[in-house]
Amino acid sequence: MHNKEVIYLDHAATSWPKPPEVAEAVMQTMLNDAANPGRGSHQMAVRASRVLFDARFKLAKLFHIANANDIAFTMNTTMGLNMAIKGFVKKGDHVVATNIEHNSVRRPLEFLKQTQGVKVSYVKTDPHGMVNVSQIEEELRPDTSLIIVNHSSNLLGSIVPLAEIGELARRKGVKLLVDAAQTAGLLEIDVGQMNIDMLAFPGHKGLLGPQGTGGLYISPELDITPLLHGGTGSQSESAEQPNVRPDRYEAGTQNTPGIAGLAAGVRFVMQETVANIHAREWSLTQRMMEGLRELDGIKLLGPGLGQPRTGIVSFVLEGVDPSETAFILDQHYHIAVRSGFHCTPLAHETAGTLETGAIRASVGCFTTEQEVDSLIAAVKEIKQHYR
Amino acid sequence: MHNKEVIYLDHAATSWPKPPEVAEAVMQTMLNDAANPGRGSHQMAVRASRVLFDARFKLAKLFHIANANDIAFTMNTTMGLNMAIKGFVKKGDHVVATNIEHNSVRRPLEFLKQTQGVKVSYVKTDPHGMVNVSQIEEELRPDTSLIIVNHSSNLLGSIVPLAEIGELARRKGVKLLVDAAQTAGLLEIDVGQMNIDMLAFPGHKGLLGPQGTGGLYISPELDITPLLHGGTGSQSESAEQPNVRPDRYEAGTQNTPGIAGLAAGVRFVMQETVANIHAREWSLTQRMMEGLRELDGIKLLGPGLGQPRTGIVSFVLEGVDPSETAFILDQHYHIAVRSGFHCTPLAHETAGTLETGAIRASVGCFTTEQEVDSLIAAVKEIKQHYR
Repeated sequence: MHNKEVIYLDHAATSWPKPPEVAEAVMQTMLNDAANPGRGSHQMAVRASRVLFDARFKLAKLFHIANANDIAFTMNTTMGLNMAIKGFVKKGDHVVATNIEHNSVRRPLEFLKQTQGVKVSYVKTDPHGMVNVSQIEEELRPDTSLIIVNHSSNLLGSIVPLAEIGELARRKGVKLLVDAAQTAGLLEIDVGQMNIDMLAFPGHKGLLGPQGTGGLYISPELDITPLLHGGTGSQSESAEQPNVRPDRYEAGTQNTPGIAGLAAGVRFVMQETVANIHAREWSLTQRMMEGLRELDGIKLLGPGLGQPRTGIVSFVLEGVDPSETAFILDQHYHIAVRSGFHCTPLAHETAGTLETGAIRASVGCFTTEQEVDSLIAAVKEIKQHYR
Repeated sequence: MHNKEVIYLDHAATSWPKPPEVAEAVMQTMLNDAANPGRGSHQMAVRASRVLFDARFKLAKLFHIANANDIAFTMNTTMGLNMAIKGFVKKGDHVVATNIEHNSVRRPLEFLKQTQGVKVSYVKTDPHGMVNVSQIEEELRPDTSLIIVNHSSNLLGSIVPLAEIGELARRKGVKLLVDAAQTAGLLEIDVGQMNIDMLAFPGHKGLLGPQGTGGLYISPELDITPLLHGGTGSQSESAEQPNVRPDRYEAGTQNTPGIAGLAAGVRFVMQETVANIHAREWSLTQRMMEGLRELDGIKLLGPGLGQPRTGIVSFVLEGVDPSETAFILDQHYHIAVRSGFHCTPLAHETAGTLETGAIRASVGCFTTEQEVDSLIAAVKEIKQHYR
C-alpha cells in the first residue's frame, strides 16, 4: 500500500514509511476508542485515557523516566521546546545554548531576549558540529539558569556529549534542556543518568509515530509555567491550572489517535532496540559517505568517516546549486532529500554553507543499502552533467 | 467496523463516529503523503503541503474567510484560544468575557490577571445561559481591548447573538474573539458579516475531523504575538519568526494526516450543509427534552423547549447523583454521556448546579431518534429505581 516508487531520504524531517502497526493503531483508535480522554467516565473515554497512559508509560520506559506523568504530550518538538523555554526561563536570566540549535530553540530565545531581557550565549562548535564541554562551562555565569543543547545537529549529524554536559549542569546547579528532535528513538537517552531536566522530543521522527505528536519530559523538581491554560477534565471548578501532572501541562483535547500511533511506533523501536537501529543507520551513513567522497568537488559536512553521527549526511557539490540538485534528484530519480537552510542558520555559518545551503540526505529505520547506492549513483550522474 | 454497541451522546466532548472518509483520508495521507509539509521540495513534501492547503481552503470557505492563510492550524481549540488571548492582550488591558466561558478562556484570562495586571469583567448571563448584548456594552471601558464570547455554552447549549456582539465590538473599536468549540460546523459562522476578529475552533467536534486538530482565524488587521516560535521552513536564516502567514503562527511540523482527516470532515459538513445538520440536531434535542421533562424532579438546563440551542441537553435528577447516573447509563445501558463540571464553573453557578454538577447528553450528526429514545427510557428506569 505504500508508495514504494520513491526513495525517501528525508527522515530527519519526518520518518516514512512507518511500521504498518502505526497506521493500524491510529485507525483502530479512531474507529473504536476516540472519545475524549479524561473528559468522561464512560467506557470509550476510559479506553481513550488508556491509550494516553499506554503511550506515556512506554515513553517513560524508553527514556528511563521514573514517573510517566512527568511527560506531557505536545503537537511537535517545537511546542515542547517553547513550553520548556518560555515556561522555565525568567526575566533577565542567562541561557547557554550552542550554534547548532534549531530555530525552534533559537527563535524562542531571541524572542525572550527582545521581550524579557534574557541573555543568551551561543557556544561555537567546531566546523563539524562538535561541542566542547569546557566551552559550555566557560560561558556559565552566576545568572545562568539553563543550558540548552541539540542532542544531534539536524544539519551536521554530530552528537553532543550529553552525559558530560548533564554532569556539568548538575555540578554547577544549572538546569539542562535537551532537544531530542534528531535522537529520540535513535540514540540512547537516560534522563536520570544524563541529568536531563527537560527533554523535548518528536513523535514522528525516530519514534516512528504520526505527525502531530511529540512530548516534553519535565523533571518533578521543576515547576514551569504552562504554555497552555485551559480545560483538563480535572479540578474543573478552579480558575487556575491544576498542579497535578500530566494535566498541568496538557490543556485541551489530546490527539488520541495520533498518540495511539506513537505508542505503536515506540513499541516497534523498543523491540528493534535503539542500539540496533542506530548501528544500522550509522552503517548506512558510512556507506553513503564512502560513495559520495569519491566525487570531485564534493564537501561532506559533519563528523568524518568512522566518527559517531546520526543518520544525517549533508553535502555541497561545488558549482551545483543544492536546490537544483534536490530538484533533479526528486524529479528524475524519485529520490527525496532536503535542500536549503534546514532552520539552523548558525550551524550553516559554522559549516561554511551559509551562502549556499546544503543538501541533506537522511536515512531511517527502513532505508536499504540499495537506496543509498541509488543516491550515490544519482549524485554522480548529476555531477558529471555539470562538469 | 465501528463499535456500534454504544449509544454515544458525548458529541460536545468529541464527535464519534466520524464519516468513514475521515479515517480513510488520515490513512491515505499516512501511507502516501506524510512527508514534512513546507520542509522540502520533493514530491511527497509538496503533496503534504497540498493537504494543508486544501484543508485551509475548505475552512476558509466554511467560515467566509477571504484569505485562507489567515487560518493557523492548532492542536485543539484550547491552543487557538491561548494563542489568541496571550498573543493579543497586552499588559494592563481590560477584557470582557461572559460567565459561560470554558476554562480554556477563563484560565488564560486568570493567568494574565495574575501575571500581567490584565483586568477581566465576566458578564452574567441569565440562568439559561442567554447573554444580553447591552450588558456587554455596559462593561466596555476605554481600556477594553477585547471581547471574548463562547458562541454556545458547552454546558447549557445556549447560543449567543454573535452578529449583534460583533456589531457592538466594531462600533466601539474593540476586537472580538469567538470560541467556536461547540459551533464550528454546527451553526453558521461568517467572520466578515459577524465582525469576528479571531475565531478559535476545534477540528474534532462539529467539523468531524480527528482529535489533534483545530485552528485559529486571525484577522489580517491584527498582528498578534505567536504562541510558538520555531522553524517554519521559510526565512530559515532569520532569528525572528517570519511575518508571512500562515508560517508566522505555525511553527514546527504540522499534523498532516490529522489535517487531511479534518478536510474530509469539513467536506462532509459542507455537503450536508451546516443548516441541515443544525436542524437535525435541534430536533433531536427537542425530542430529548420532551421525553425527559415528563420525569418528576428533573431539571433541564439551558434554553426552554422551542428555543434555539445547540445539540447539548444537560440535566439534573433530584436526589440522584449525576456521576452515579452517568455510571449506570454507561455500564448498564451502554449510553455514553458526560457528568460532572464540564470545565465551566461559572456557568454551573449561573445554572444553580455548582454543588451537584450535571449530566450532559449531546447529540451529533449521526445520532438517531431511537438513540434519544433509549436515553429517555434509561433515565426513566434509573429515576424509578431511586424513587
